[in-house]
Amino acid sequence: MSGSDRFLDEAIDLALDNIRQGGRPFGAVVVKDGVVIARAANRMQADSDPTAHAELLALRAAGKALGSPRLDGCSVYASGQPCPMCMAAMRMSDIGDITFAYSDEQAEPFGLSTAAIAAELAKPYDQQAGLSLKHQPQEVTEDGHLYRIWQRQAGSAD
Amino acid sequence: MSGSDRFLDEAIDLALDNIRQGGRPFGAVVVKDGVVIARAANRMQADSDPTAHAELLALRAAGKALGSPRLDGCSVYASGQPCPMCMAAMRMSDIGDITFAYSDEQAEPFGLSTAAIAAELAKPYDQQAGLSLKHQPQEVTEDGHLYRIWQRQAGSAD
Repeated sequence: MSGSDRFLDEAIDLALDNIRQGGRPFGAVVVKDGVVIARAANRMQADSDPTAHAELLALRAAGKALGSPRLDGCSVYASGQPCPMCMAAMRMSDIGDITFAYSDEQAEPFGLSTAAIAAELAKPYDQQAGLSLKHQPQEVTEDGHLYRIWQRQAGSAD
Repeated sequence: MSGSDRFLDEAIDLALDNIRQGGRPFGAVVVKDGVVIARAANRMQADSDPTAHAELLALRAAGKALGSPRLDGCSVYASGQPCPMCMAAMRMSDIGDITFAYSDEQAEPFGLSTAAIAAELAKPYDQQAGLSLKHQPQEVTEDGHLYRIWQRQAGSAD
């Protein structure tokens, strides 16, 4: 059995365990240098947490395991096709190598596909249905600019 | 001062407090029925957590406060323009009303804009640079299909 098969099997086993515990059918593992460094199953309902997807929880555990929010060099194996939140979370933590077992197409008959929301989120913000995204600029002096304050503080900490 | 101004001020104050504690300049609050039900600041470095953006932590706290992962009827006020992970997290938890104070354009000179990664993530997956997203289908019987197992279990719990 290849490493890829083994890691995907572990993600699916996490999903199966989660089903037995009344959770949703999603599991994921994060792999670095051929070793699983983090694993998680979906906990949305158990934790009343809309962000508690398997992949997102696995990324959080991976950061903790590595002592850094940067996860470059890691791969993610997920039982299901990652949703746009988890795709963005992976890409923003420098993970580009992602393998999944069950596609959105396979998930669709069970109401588990996120393809429709992914398509919506790929549109320009002003064309997304049901979205009001407002920029409310602040009147501040150059010194009062939030990011300038951060830059000064970060600079003084160097 | 309007409600919107007050909520945005609170998000900015969270960002300012976070800067003083050595964190990144981002804060967010979740509002329901005119009341702040959750607040958070960025904790990426403090928690070694790539997902610990202010908005994402605020959504997690809001779910806990409401006892549900569904956050419809909530609004988010953020000090900075939400990144694609947080945008997806908000949309997937049914939040469509989002207001921010500092735009990506204002963040760009400070290296804090996520506009480039947002543009990349809006492309079809097979056109995104540095992304290998692989579907590795499983050979299973209809009974062994992960989502079928979940459907049976969920059905039996009804």
